[in-house]
Amino acid sequence: MKAFVCIAAAASLFAWAAPASAQFAKPEDAVKYRQSALSVMGTHFGRLGAMVNGKVPFDAKVAADSAELVATMAKLPWAGFGPGTDKDSRSKAMSEVWTEQAKFKAGSDKLAAESVKLAAAGKTGNLDALKTAFGATAETCKACHDAFRNK
Amino acid sequence: MKAFVCIAAAASLFAWAAPASAQFAKPEDAVKYRQSALSVMGTHFGRLGAMVNGKVPFDAKVAADSAELVATMAKLPWAGFGPGTDKDSRSKAMSEVWTEQAKFKAGSDKLAAESVKLAAAGKTGNLDALKTAFGATAETCKACHDAFRNK
Repeated sequence: MKAFVCIAAAASLFAWAAPASAQFAKPEDAVKYRQSALSVMGTHFGRLGAMVNGKVPFDAKVAADSAELVATMAKLPWAGFGPGTDKDSRSKAMSEVWTEQAKFKAGSDKLAAESVKLAAAGKTGNLDALKTAFGATAETCKACHDAFRNK
Repeated sequence: MKAFVCIAAAASLFAWAAPASAQFAKPEDAVKYRQSALSVMGTHFGRLGAMVNGKVPFDAKVAADSAELVATMAKLPWAGFGPGTDKDSRSKAMSEVWTEQAKFKAGSDKLAAESVKLAAAGKTGNLDALKTAFGATAETCKACHDAFRNK
């Protein structure tokens, strides 16, 4: 009975991660998908970081586009962390992704919320607004990487 | 002089692919970026294909979201095909990407245009509209894969 409750709870927790329509044919497809989405997000977040940190000149159009892309990509990777996707030699995901699902989901929700603010800040064309939103979003990246990603 | 003209022409052709703000620190970063963007696009295009081909039930929300994502992703990979990104063992890109740049650009432009129609069709919630737009978009994928991607 206890086992059943645990399985039901796990299924419920992963409902957000794996709706029927978001399923993958093979676990490795899910791993590739989540890594690809995170990679594209990381590239565009890095472009914002370069502007925020003064390494490249601020370009309002590039900033707006990149911030919007970060917000779009931030919704995607989590469907790729479904059951059975924890054993993959290419993955840096810690087992805590699956043993601490509620915390992992809270982290991804936080990123989604902050990245929406980032996209809004990007649209203002104001570098200071972008800096603030970038910092808050970067904290959510770091919190999850520290807790859930192997070095 | 001839060499200069060729270099100038090449630089001009790749202006679309490599604006200053879209540069990558290393060629391998560009390769990873383009492959990641194409992979995310392919996953969502595949989801549309499964619905269009009756392999999974039509879900208007999933279709709309996936079609929108295809249109968003369709703009991204081309910045990753800049000069110096043609030598990478992980890449399936043929040398024709760089020797037939005008044709390659025409292909990516065609995909961008068709994927905008695909996103519009996705928003209608009409499976027949989606089928038509999916077919037209799929043709642009195939044309470029045949001409520019090693098997």
